[in-house]
Amino acid sequence: MTREASSSGLTVLVLGADGYIGWPMAMHLSRLGHRVVAVDNLARRSWDREGGTYSLVPIRSMPQRVRRWQELTGKTILWRRADLTDFAAVDQLFAEFRPEAVIHFAEQRSAPFSMIDRDHAVFTQVNNVSGTLNLLFAIHERVPDCHLIKLGTMGEYGTPNIDIEEGYIDIEHNGRTDRLPFPKLAGSFYHLSKVHDSNNIHFTCRVWGMRATDLNQGVVYGLETEDTGLHPDLATRFDFDSIWGTALNRFCVQAALGQPLTVYGQGGQTRGYLDIRDTMACITLALENPAERSECRVFNQFTEQFSINELADLVSEAREHHGLTTQISHISNPRVELEDHYYNAKHQHLLDLGLKPHLLGETLIESVIGTVGAYVDRVDPVLLEKPSVNWRTGGNEVWRQYSHRGGPAGEVRTAPARLGRTKVQAVV
Amino acid sequence: MTREASSSGLTVLVLGADGYIGWPMAMHLSRLGHRVVAVDNLARRSWDREGGTYSLVPIRSMPQRVRRWQELTGKTILWRRADLTDFAAVDQLFAEFRPEAVIHFAEQRSAPFSMIDRDHAVFTQVNNVSGTLNLLFAIHERVPDCHLIKLGTMGEYGTPNIDIEEGYIDIEHNGRTDRLPFPKLAGSFYHLSKVHDSNNIHFTCRVWGMRATDLNQGVVYGLETEDTGLHPDLATRFDFDSIWGTALNRFCVQAALGQPLTVYGQGGQTRGYLDIRDTMACITLALENPAERSECRVFNQFTEQFSINELADLVSEAREHHGLTTQISHISNPRVELEDHYYNAKHQHLLDLGLKPHLLGETLIESVIGTVGAYVDRVDPVLLEKPSVNWRTGGNEVWRQYSHRGGPAGEVRTAPARLGRTKVQAVV
Repeated sequence: MTREASSSGLTVLVLGADGYIGWPMAMHLSRLGHRVVAVDNLARRSWDREGGTYSLVPIRSMPQRVRRWQELTGKTILWRRADLTDFAAVDQLFAEFRPEAVIHFAEQRSAPFSMIDRDHAVFTQVNNVSGTLNLLFAIHERVPDCHLIKLGTMGEYGTPNIDIEEGYIDIEHNGRTDRLPFPKLAGSFYHLSKVHDSNNIHFTCRVWGMRATDLNQGVVYGLETEDTGLHPDLATRFDFDSIWGTALNRFCVQAALGQPLTVYGQGGQTRGYLDIRDTMACITLALENPAERSECRVFNQFTEQFSINELADLVSEAREHHGLTTQISHISNPRVELEDHYYNAKHQHLLDLGLKPHLLGETLIESVIGTVGAYVDRVDPVLLEKPSVNWRTGGNEVWRQYSHRGGPAGEVRTAPARLGRTKVQAVV
Repeated sequence: MTREASSSGLTVLVLGADGYIGWPMAMHLSRLGHRVVAVDNLARRSWDREGGTYSLVPIRSMPQRVRRWQELTGKTILWRRADLTDFAAVDQLFAEFRPEAVIHFAEQRSAPFSMIDRDHAVFTQVNNVSGTLNLLFAIHERVPDCHLIKLGTMGEYGTPNIDIEEGYIDIEHNGRTDRLPFPKLAGSFYHLSKVHDSNNIHFTCRVWGMRATDLNQGVVYGLETEDTGLHPDLATRFDFDSIWGTALNRFCVQAALGQPLTVYGQGGQTRGYLDIRDTMACITLALENPAERSECRVFNQFTEQFSINELADLVSEAREHHGLTTQISHISNPRVELEDHYYNAKHQHLLDLGLKPHLLGETLIESVIGTVGAYVDRVDPVLLEKPSVNWRTGGNEVWRQYSHRGGPAGEVRTAPARLGRTKVQAVV
């Protein structure tokens, strides 16, 4: 370890600071006394406009957010609009701030978005891979001692029939052994882009002596951190549609509306999950305990495993304690994925660094349902219920209907009448 | 297997048909009675102009080549100039020809080129990955039964301390087992681009039912196939410089000139090799025995393993039989790679399909030295001897001196006087 947070903190670039996790992360590190430069190209807001999607919880512009943060806490988050695929802009950020650490969320992060069509697949991979390559070169050329903290995904591993280790696996084969990168079976062009990134980062650690932490994160839930709760202007986004949202978010909105929870396929799909407060803690632990030079450290960043059926049951049980009955219905799975499989992923490294998990319980689920319940009049039932992208055939009628409908992100929508005929595609 | 070569043969797109292997491949399949559409964007010729490099053996334009081929054999190779990163052009090729198979060589294929600087690294990955994605979508949308034969590289695996299997490995871990993609440790941004491709292709086989053969090819040597020898206009290229050439090619030119053979580092770097005639045979075997739908078949395409020192010794011994003494000198390795390592790569699948290897012997080496000996007045000694790209620091003074010197590819060069001072960078 070559650096510690001095009294004045570390200079940290938070890339993708307009996103669901990026914005709370910027506040969290600012609160801890780090010098935070929040960077985003605001692409997510334009993708919302493209697809007719929006955050259920209204969110403010980045200038409004950092202004409110300063007003409430006296702390400064520097805000810069920049696109990682523009190397001149990246290089200028590094020349100006010479960061000691970079936290990299700045990628297209939706699997369904990457499966819409060729344009979206190629865009996702080119955007994510070339943005990360630019970052690697900027670090190598400007601040080679800088610690890269990169957000990967547990989805890089897929669902192998063996225990999932943290990044590497000791293989014994024909009487010889080696510790090698864990084989990946990514499930979408998006997940593949993260595998490509991981391979590129690992290479630069070996060849250039980069120091990197690749965080294979599970599905994040929750809306409240110590900071988002300070003021509605500091809220982070809540996605519930089939492109940007998660199954748990969808279930919470459906529960708030008293609708059946829609499970894709059999519902045995099991993944790792964590509370957004634990994401804050994990990334802070990685930041304050940096990787060594030449080290490509991989942490599996989640706290608990659930199947989709288990999540639906948890939501249903939370409602039951209020005397409410929740139906669970199964719809054709628009994705190609195993629906009944072995899943046991290790996640020890962050616990060893001191992580104290917040586990998913009824209180949290009730709190999310309560928060989103305040905005139920903003819910578009089609976006909530109908998957718009199929893994085999791409964007469907729902996607075509909603894309480029215009209007500002966050606008309250009503269900379009003509979509009454739309059936969820039955592809298994 | 759903198709066999009918009397009229298969319709095959050969992508990258202007390249070292692509051109002989197009002729070979045309000779066998297949309907060959030769496609290239001629990028390699522009990269030669960019870097001041050239084929030692003069090569003709694609129109001249296909004209001469028709004149000598009566057979037609259809020639189309197109760039795989232009989806409209790719889609038009598939709509027009509806190929039953595609042989895909059309990538930036030099490791040093990808390590020159950020521009070349990003270009290599974006070009290769997006070109291959375009191809996957064109097949999926136009001819889903088409067999994709993709050229990968043995360099995707790197040099693990265990036996290298063909694409997949059976892993037993904590009492459970699975057959998973073999872990990769690629050694350059170029090699990584091929790993990215392999992962993308494997995914489309799982999700779309693509049929694919991923050929992890070793280093190819030799100039003569049954077809290139018919006429000098049908020759294929011979690269000897440090960006596009191979160590064996460099040694053959150095031997022809009576110069010391320059080995990078200790010379224990071991790789798989094969004769260009075996490349013709391997790809023909893959074509005529296609993968099943949903199958992502991986063959390791090489016939023998050699260390660099063994290659230098083979060249030296071949000269000794003519009473000639050859010196071998070691220079600082511009690459970051293990120079003394375990290497045992399987290559059984193509033998099982019927491959009869041509092994590397003195006769072949003498024949190559004889051929290149006819062009020794075209050798630029700086390009022959001085590595121009370093894995840690990128393109060096030699690269900067030679890049954008202008002049047509294949132009005879003289050594630039000012490079007399240049030292090979001593980075280990």
